[in-house]
Amino acid sequence: MIYLDNAATSYPKPEAVYNGVERCMREYCANPGRGGHEMSIASGKAVLYAREIIAAFFNFKNPMLLSFTKNATEALNIAIKGYLGHGDHVITTCMEHNSVIRPLKTLERDAGLEISIIRGDMLGRIDPEDIRKAVKPNTRLIAATLSSNVNGMIMPVREIGKIARETGIAFLLDASQGVGSIDVDAIGMGIDMLAFPGHKGLMGPQGTGGLYVREGLKLKTIMEGGTGSNSESLYQPEIMPDLLESGTVNTPGIVGLGLGIEFIREFGLDKLRSHKHMLTKRFYEGLSENKKAIFYSSPDMEENSGIIAINIKDVDSSEVSHVLDRVYGIATRAGLHCSFLAHNTLGTVKSGIVRFSVSCFNTPEEIDVTVKALNEIILKV
Amino acid sequence: MIYLDNAATSYPKPEAVYNGVERCMREYCANPGRGGHEMSIASGKAVLYAREIIAAFFNFKNPMLLSFTKNATEALNIAIKGYLGHGDHVITTCMEHNSVIRPLKTLERDAGLEISIIRGDMLGRIDPEDIRKAVKPNTRLIAATLSSNVNGMIMPVREIGKIARETGIAFLLDASQGVGSIDVDAIGMGIDMLAFPGHKGLMGPQGTGGLYVREGLKLKTIMEGGTGSNSESLYQPEIMPDLLESGTVNTPGIVGLGLGIEFIREFGLDKLRSHKHMLTKRFYEGLSENKKAIFYSSPDMEENSGIIAINIKDVDSSEVSHVLDRVYGIATRAGLHCSFLAHNTLGTVKSGIVRFSVSCFNTPEEIDVTVKALNEIILKV
Repeated sequence: MIYLDNAATSYPKPEAVYNGVERCMREYCANPGRGGHEMSIASGKAVLYAREIIAAFFNFKNPMLLSFTKNATEALNIAIKGYLGHGDHVITTCMEHNSVIRPLKTLERDAGLEISIIRGDMLGRIDPEDIRKAVKPNTRLIAATLSSNVNGMIMPVREIGKIARETGIAFLLDASQGVGSIDVDAIGMGIDMLAFPGHKGLMGPQGTGGLYVREGLKLKTIMEGGTGSNSESLYQPEIMPDLLESGTVNTPGIVGLGLGIEFIREFGLDKLRSHKHMLTKRFYEGLSENKKAIFYSSPDMEENSGIIAINIKDVDSSEVSHVLDRVYGIATRAGLHCSFLAHNTLGTVKSGIVRFSVSCFNTPEEIDVTVKALNEIILKV
Repeated sequence: MIYLDNAATSYPKPEAVYNGVERCMREYCANPGRGGHEMSIASGKAVLYAREIIAAFFNFKNPMLLSFTKNATEALNIAIKGYLGHGDHVITTCMEHNSVIRPLKTLERDAGLEISIIRGDMLGRIDPEDIRKAVKPNTRLIAATLSSNVNGMIMPVREIGKIARETGIAFLLDASQGVGSIDVDAIGMGIDMLAFPGHKGLMGPQGTGGLYVREGLKLKTIMEGGTGSNSESLYQPEIMPDLLESGTVNTPGIVGLGLGIEFIREFGLDKLRSHKHMLTKRFYEGLSENKKAIFYSSPDMEENSGIIAINIKDVDSSEVSHVLDRVYGIATRAGLHCSFLAHNTLGTVKSGIVRFSVSCFNTPEEIDVTVKALNEIILKV
């Protein structure tokens, strides 16, 4: 099988991730930060180690500012529901995933939140100055994706962070797509809250993710529970990460996530990005002559996180994806990718899109086979 | 090492759980319910299979009424925050974990929730009729634990469910402790919402848990996001489990959880309970002559889910636990166990308690070694 659905869940994982998860489960998986016995301490150390790896990777100093979550969706909800309140205004983009826009629309409906959605061009490129223009006296948050999960369009994060700093508005980055190949510098980019999944570009297992919240930014909680700290209090402790991290965490998953990030660091973020660029470019070149192939992603690798979004003229995306899977053994994802906004921007709400997303483990040969398959499918249309 | 901290996280897991998690990760872990390709379908089938196992285990018919969560804490928050609103009254017990009482106290503080806490006797036994007496016109929920995580006291769940049905009040069961050895029959016990962790008695991996919500009971959401369904809507779909299950789930963890429950079913719930009873009874008998051992759990196995809660006279629980770990290699948990209410009931807020919690993998020999160790420690006091 040729797996080109890495924007959903990366596969395969580095060997170290499989081994680390198994070793943790078999050898030392007790409750981290709870008991004081040897195995509990070993689990606690392993979780702390992963926290440190992640803090270093995203360039924030205090690993305790990171709360582990089950996925990016949970992290985004904690950030959005924890920070925004009645009468607040939020600015977001036309390329957001449902994990950003659905919590916002729910707050709009239930708590009077005002939402401004910044429009982009036909590929979802936005002008950061449009964000500045949308700022109102009650604007409290800018929420933007690092890159689109539909077509890989990279957002001008650094510029958005600059505007957020200049206007004193908090900046929430949804790093779900692009993390693990685009450099994300929480401090340098002026990111106040950073939500990320573990199971996509960071090469960790499913069931992992996290939220970084900068020092001094206080969130209301959407969940409370046991934290292993201040147990005598009937209220959630104020200290981080306990404030946002209740109940037993996914220790084996977190261990795997740490090892996934270590793999990326050893591979080299630049090398990894180049590899994905090379594959994406090869895909474009292989198909560019074919007039029945309609592209919805940018061929300029500087603004594409590694996604090829296409349709075959007059054919439903699901059908193409289905044939690729059944006839050629190529895994892609068709449809709307949980991102109505982005498809609305690209004009593909009805047809959907066939999405090809690459990882460091894909090879040029796999791309060649895929391009050949697409050309064959087009011939038969 | 002798592991007696199974009430925190069960260890070890059945071999099938380790193998199933690894096989899933290595062989077929894509996004369940998202793409239509072979691996995504395999993941989807594996998650559905686990949903069916869990529905059968808890005796509810429609597996789609189960939402997977990262742990019981998330499930409890979804239930409590999703069901209760301003001016509502909730009845709960004196033996609840912070994962129940902290969300309730937060709603009391922020949304005017009224809370009645039913008191128990010295071991936390409650009289279900006290619940009936506490019912007020605005009572909307009874929230109770299946058994205490501090001393294993089993709550009169069937009677509580009966009162809930008779008064038309919803019943939320926190099955965190005792699940996997006490029979939990969602329909038969009149349970409207059932929250459970995967990593304790159900022998699954950390990072798993779930919430069953009976047909027709509608919850507000505390999180929204991508569901792979109704992607063209900017609001959360109303269908279950999507309403309460956003973002990528922990497929390998869920696979492991399903295998953990299959192991329990094969082992036999009755046999498993008998085994735990035998171990707990042996522990009691071994220590009962020692007058310096103070017991806070019931020796009657019909009301104890498999926890021995003790203190050694005049010695702090942490110190005993520490010596057990360092000198004897016995893993226990001291302190307050994230349950102020229960310790308040038992009168152990200052000293804490040394908790010994057994699983089906503990042996009589391990209990004997532990009892011997405790007798030695007491001699040295």
